[in-house]
Amino acid sequence: MKERFYQYIQNLQDRITDAIETQEGKAKFKEDLWTRPEGGGGRTRILENGEVIEKGGVNISAVHGPLPKSMQAYFKVGDVDFFACGLSLVLHPKNPMAPTVHANWRYFEMYDKKGELIEQWFGGGQDLTPYYLFEDDVIHFHSICKRACDEHHPQFYTEFKKKCDSYFYNSHREEARGVGGLFFDYLKKDSQFSLDERYNFVTTVGDSFLEAYLPLLEKRKEMTFTPEQRTWQEIRRGRYVEFNLVHDKGTLFGLRTNGRIESILMSLPPKVQWYYNHQPKDGSKEAQMLEVLKNPRNWV
Amino acid sequence: MKERFYQYIQNLQDRITDAIETQEGKAKFKEDLWTRPEGGGGRTRILENGEVIEKGGVNISAVHGPLPKSMQAYFKVGDVDFFACGLSLVLHPKNPMAPTVHANWRYFEMYDKKGELIEQWFGGGQDLTPYYLFEDDVIHFHSICKRACDEHHPQFYTEFKKKCDSYFYNSHREEARGVGGLFFDYLKKDSQFSLDERYNFVTTVGDSFLEAYLPLLEKRKEMTFTPEQRTWQEIRRGRYVEFNLVHDKGTLFGLRTNGRIESILMSLPPKVQWYYNHQPKDGSKEAQMLEVLKNPRNWV
Repeated sequence: MKERFYQYIQNLQDRITDAIETQEGKAKFKEDLWTRPEGGGGRTRILENGEVIEKGGVNISAVHGPLPKSMQAYFKVGDVDFFACGLSLVLHPKNPMAPTVHANWRYFEMYDKKGELIEQWFGGGQDLTPYYLFEDDVIHFHSICKRACDEHHPQFYTEFKKKCDSYFYNSHREEARGVGGLFFDYLKKDSQFSLDERYNFVTTVGDSFLEAYLPLLEKRKEMTFTPEQRTWQEIRRGRYVEFNLVHDKGTLFGLRTNGRIESILMSLPPKVQWYYNHQPKDGSKEAQMLEVLKNPRNWV
Repeated sequence: MKERFYQYIQNLQDRITDAIETQEGKAKFKEDLWTRPEGGGGRTRILENGEVIEKGGVNISAVHGPLPKSMQAYFKVGDVDFFACGLSLVLHPKNPMAPTVHANWRYFEMYDKKGELIEQWFGGGQDLTPYYLFEDDVIHFHSICKRACDEHHPQFYTEFKKKCDSYFYNSHREEARGVGGLFFDYLKKDSQFSLDERYNFVTTVGDSFLEAYLPLLEKRKEMTFTPEQRTWQEIRRGRYVEFNLVHDKGTLFGLRTNGRIESILMSLPPKVQWYYNHQPKDGSKEAQMLEVLKNPRNWV
């Protein structure tokens, strides 16, 4: 399963970076190969200052070795070994009418010191962070998420949509990071689903990503916008930073377990602003967006 | 002591905001008075888009009530009441040649449920975050810090300078946030120092702030700079955000204990950039600055 899933995400990384480069026209991803001193490594692909994507990363990694102390505490296990691989992506478009998107698909194994497999599971998801609300876009994104889920279980969409809303939540602001999508974790084999079935589900979601996101990027990337709308985007990107640095478990783990900092922090937006006590005007498009973040909706 | 120290910081807030407004010429601080539902409140003063200060806050607060659960765990105490008051300030100048400065002076009391005082202590400090290294500036700042300390104990400067270097440290980047200054906490009365003596020390440091910082602001605020130097400043401000959101205990406490978000996050810089894997050119002024952050020096 390790090899199988890593091959899947290598291929998916190629498909996604190709598709984004097609949207761009000129700008290309730069690739960095890196190795982890304790075992494993990754392939980081970053695109900066594109016509469409202001900053984006589509990264894969496969790391292994003794489970770091801080993760032992988190997983409530002793001194075990682990293998983890995954694809993480964040795309920050330049145009404030186009939403930021994040996705991640990952696979984890844990072994005792004799090398016996103790646990194995999948996790991941994909979620959307718009700066202006286009309801059709959000409905499209969620519809593709739902279709991918429905192929596998009638409850998956409802369950993982809810998990996404509660995970990507800036509790200190009492608002969602975005309009959600899917989030799932610890998909272990159990009485109901074999590991193969879990693999099929996660890869169906991975396969759905471009269909969920690309049409939105295509529709919005050339819309006109004002400097004020751009400022709003940069202010909202500040909330994205707050979530990633204060609440996001993946980011904090990376920082605490000697991960590759530049690959982890590629998620941070390129240009960000923080004003004191910024409040959009009542009835404005900005206030409308905020209203949806304060009160997550069901989109499909 | 509660009233005495709160009067001190009210007065110090006035002195500092007056002095900054004098530097500015036109821009003024805006004041927000707020109350905390569980007890207490504060006086937040923010200046944005000044000629000299791009964003700055000089805030005081005095809060009390039952100690929040998350802080009970942190202090390893049970269900107690508390009183806390302090002044926190962060000034982000517009000119990249002028350093950002942070300072905080605070007093804390803890009581059992009968209202008996269990503990009382002072904490605080002041530290400098330049974007370009002017050695004379750093030496001046540290000299004033040292003079304030030396009035009270020959070891204070060495001890609190070291604490500052180790506290304001972005461990995930293996670099200091800035060039340090002073940091101290849990200054309780003990066999060596009475509470009055601790009060005298903390207020000597508070009184030294303007003398330590204002001359640097005055010298640097009108220097010419290039767009590239401004970009470097915005990239380095990103590291400031990373420290405050990932590592700073004060910020994280505030966010977790239902503090006033906008007063806490006033510390975040106004305009920030994150590039992937940004490295200054060897031998450049930017590399020279980074070198000092990687290897904290003794300045006096």
